Amino acid sequence: MNQHSPIPDPEALIADIGRRARKAAAALAQTPTATKAAALEAAARALRGSEQAVLTANSHDMERSAKNGLSAAMLDRLRLDPARIEGIASALEAVAKLDDPVGRLIDESVPSNGLKLSRVRVPLGVVGIIYESRPNVTADAGALCLMAGNAAILRGGSEAIETNRAIHQCLVAGLKEAGLPEDAIQLVPTTDRAAVGAMLRASGLIDIIVPRGGKGLVARVQEEARIPVLAHLDGICHTYVHSAADPEMAKAIAVNAKMRRTGICGAMETLLIDKSFADPSPVIGALIEAGCEVRGDTTVQARDERVAAANEEDWNTEYLEPILSIAIVDGMDAAIDHIATHGSGHTDAIITDDADAAAEFLNRVDSAIVMHNASSQFADGGEFGLGAEIGIATGRLHARGPVALEGLTTYKWIARGNGTIRP
Amino acid sequence: MNQHSPIPDPEALIADIGRRARKAAAALAQTPTATKAAALEAAARALRGSEQAVLTANSHDMERSAKNGLSAAMLDRLRLDPARIEGIASALEAVAKLDDPVGRLIDESVPSNGLKLSRVRVPLGVVGIIYESRPNVTADAGALCLMAGNAAILRGGSEAIETNRAIHQCLVAGLKEAGLPEDAIQLVPTTDRAAVGAMLRASGLIDIIVPRGGKGLVARVQEEARIPVLAHLDGICHTYVHSAADPEMAKAIAVNAKMRRTGICGAMETLLIDKSFADPSPVIGALIEAGCEVRGDTTVQARDERVAAANEEDWNTEYLEPILSIAIVDGMDAAIDHIATHGSGHTDAIITDDADAAAEFLNRVDSAIVMHNASSQFADGGEFGLGAEIGIATGRLHARGPVALEGLTTYKWIARGNGTIRP
Repeated sequence: MNQHSPIPDPEALIADIGRRARKAAAALAQTPTATKAAALEAAARALRGSEQAVLTANSHDMERSAKNGLSAAMLDRLRLDPARIEGIASALEAVAKLDDPVGRLIDESVPSNGLKLSRVRVPLGVVGIIYESRPNVTADAGALCLMAGNAAILRGGSEAIETNRAIHQCLVAGLKEAGLPEDAIQLVPTTDRAAVGAMLRASGLIDIIVPRGGKGLVARVQEEARIPVLAHLDGICHTYVHSAADPEMAKAIAVNAKMRRTGICGAMETLLIDKSFADPSPVIGALIEAGCEVRGDTTVQARDERVAAANEEDWNTEYLEPILSIAIVDGMDAAIDHIATHGSGHTDAIITDDADAAAEFLNRVDSAIVMHNASSQFADGGEFGLGAEIGIATGRLHARGPVALEGLTTYKWIARGNGTIRP
Repeated sequence: MNQHSPIPDPEALIADIGRRARKAAAALAQTPTATKAAALEAAARALRGSEQAVLTANSHDMERSAKNGLSAAMLDRLRLDPARIEGIASALEAVAKLDDPVGRLIDESVPSNGLKLSRVRVPLGVVGIIYESRPNVTADAGALCLMAGNAAILRGGSEAIETNRAIHQCLVAGLKEAGLPEDAIQLVPTTDRAAVGAMLRASGLIDIIVPRGGKGLVARVQEEARIPVLAHLDGICHTYVHSAADPEMAKAIAVNAKMRRTGICGAMETLLIDKSFADPSPVIGALIEAGCEVRGDTTVQARDERVAAANEEDWNTEYLEPILSIAIVDGMDAAIDHIATHGSGHTDAIITDDADAAAEFLNRVDSAIVMHNASSQFADGGEFGLGAEIGIATGRLHARGPVALEGLTTYKWIARGNGTIRP
């Protein structure tokens, strides 16, 4: 089978999938929490029962992708083993236990006209997920959409198509067992890239697109989409060591924020050290000794001969590697200006023992997540107590930062009268 | 002066305005409520003090527009008199008294990692308003944006340009008096339509576009915008008279929902009467006697010879006039199907004394506003206790229904640690 064989009419394919999703979404919006949870639990059982079939599908994907020259990193993301399959099944069960946001009361009031008003959470509708080689997204994203009452349209990478199909079959088995429409979670059956374009233009059929993957994918989606996108392009996270920072805390947080895991979007990429901070050398030294390549401005270079020169591009770079840029800044205003100029609105932190300085930073820095005396590596839906996340958003509308079930809902106004007419 | 003279580089003009707005927005995000309120109160004083200048500007706009053949309805929207100017000034003062959403705590938690998490409301940033002939929008929209801490970029219709400039000068006087940046509320100085296009593509400079005006304007904005749009295109509002509706209540609400004001987006456009409802004739008769032209399906026509035949297009039409389409439907499912097929997700109501039926309708109808035993004419930010509205949104993301100050904000996550690092 040619994995990239073009299909005659991607628009018609997506329109059909979209219409079926819309119909399923109407049913899901009325589905009790227990039924949605039962579907996910049944899907987890089906996945455990299909371990062999999923592994076989995955080995086909791995062989084909290796032959096609997929990078070692991408192959590792694609690869499943029994432990990873168990992880996917457990994640389905964890989502089934999350609080259902649908029907939750936001607020209520009785204005002077006598109407009783309330705002209650309702599902967003139809969510399109466009992702790359990680097959676990098939289960994770499908589960989160379902639990928030949304229909999901999944479009995974061509390299993972057989694995995704095998996992998707387990999700469908779960839906069936719970008596829910199979169209609640659909997998786009083609790997023709034109289908992605059709999804991005499916205004009225898909309510929101969530891209999950590398910068190339997110950039394409943000550029082409004619419907709202929930995503972040960059995670250029800063830590600002204020003049009143505790030196030991500064060292510990800096090393953790950069080096715990360098490949996640919440990893620190630039360290700003106030020129009035006691002594930057131990912080710089600790980072280098932890295996980090440090690139600094001339002041930083003067502190440690192991520091390379940072150029202008370094301040705008998300390395996602053990590389860090360090700048010495002259006070709070300069730190905030640097973040506003070079940041990506993802996660930015201050280290200080001065409560007023912390309050000013948290207030003025306009990012989805701002932190005080903590590592930016915490920027994660699980760490924020959301149970999971569909993604982290750096846009300004609808939902910011880690997005999970609540961000997959909207609200409606309910007005109750008693024959109430407007004078 | 040629009101439509093209400008050499609309993109550069909007980019400059946008950058200045972004800078002003950073200051506004930190501005205390009292200062924002003081600016609006000073603007109201300036407007009252400039009554003569505003009327003179308005008379120029009226003369030029009449000569250009503007319709009588549009001329009436454009026209100011001392009472209307006082109304605009009072509205500025009313916005100054609204609760400031900026800084409001949404929720807080302490996940197991020990971080103290909170979500607080912050301004959206830069709001672009694109509107037509009503010069009061200059003041209303500018005031709402300011009070929610946003910079506003106003682009009014060419027919109102002199009036808008005169009102805008009063807003700027208020900003100055309160010590706020003049760029907080900017009026696009050209009527070149290319400037609208540039605004709609100003991704990164403008965070959201709010179109205020007729369907042509909203459709163009929704079609062309590359940034989020807060709007409604249609208000095809339904009232469903359930089998268990009180006949007198049904009559009173139907007449009010249609005839109180026919030109507003919350006016009923289609009445659905359950075939098991006692007797539709008095409802139909009351509407006709109130001056409404009724178009109905064959069953409705059989009830009253004054009823014209409705064609398929009638069910999809927002008349905004004393015309109503009426269909007889077979039960709740048929009513909800009709609304899902022909509605616009704006406001839909049920009339019934059956609490279960009401609950089912309110739950299943997927509109921004759903009502029970009330007139859809209440669909309005003022009536909903919001104090004002920037518009009514029928999209699914961010804000739905009447949108006022809260809808002009977003939130940020604040994470407070104590040297907290991620294991």
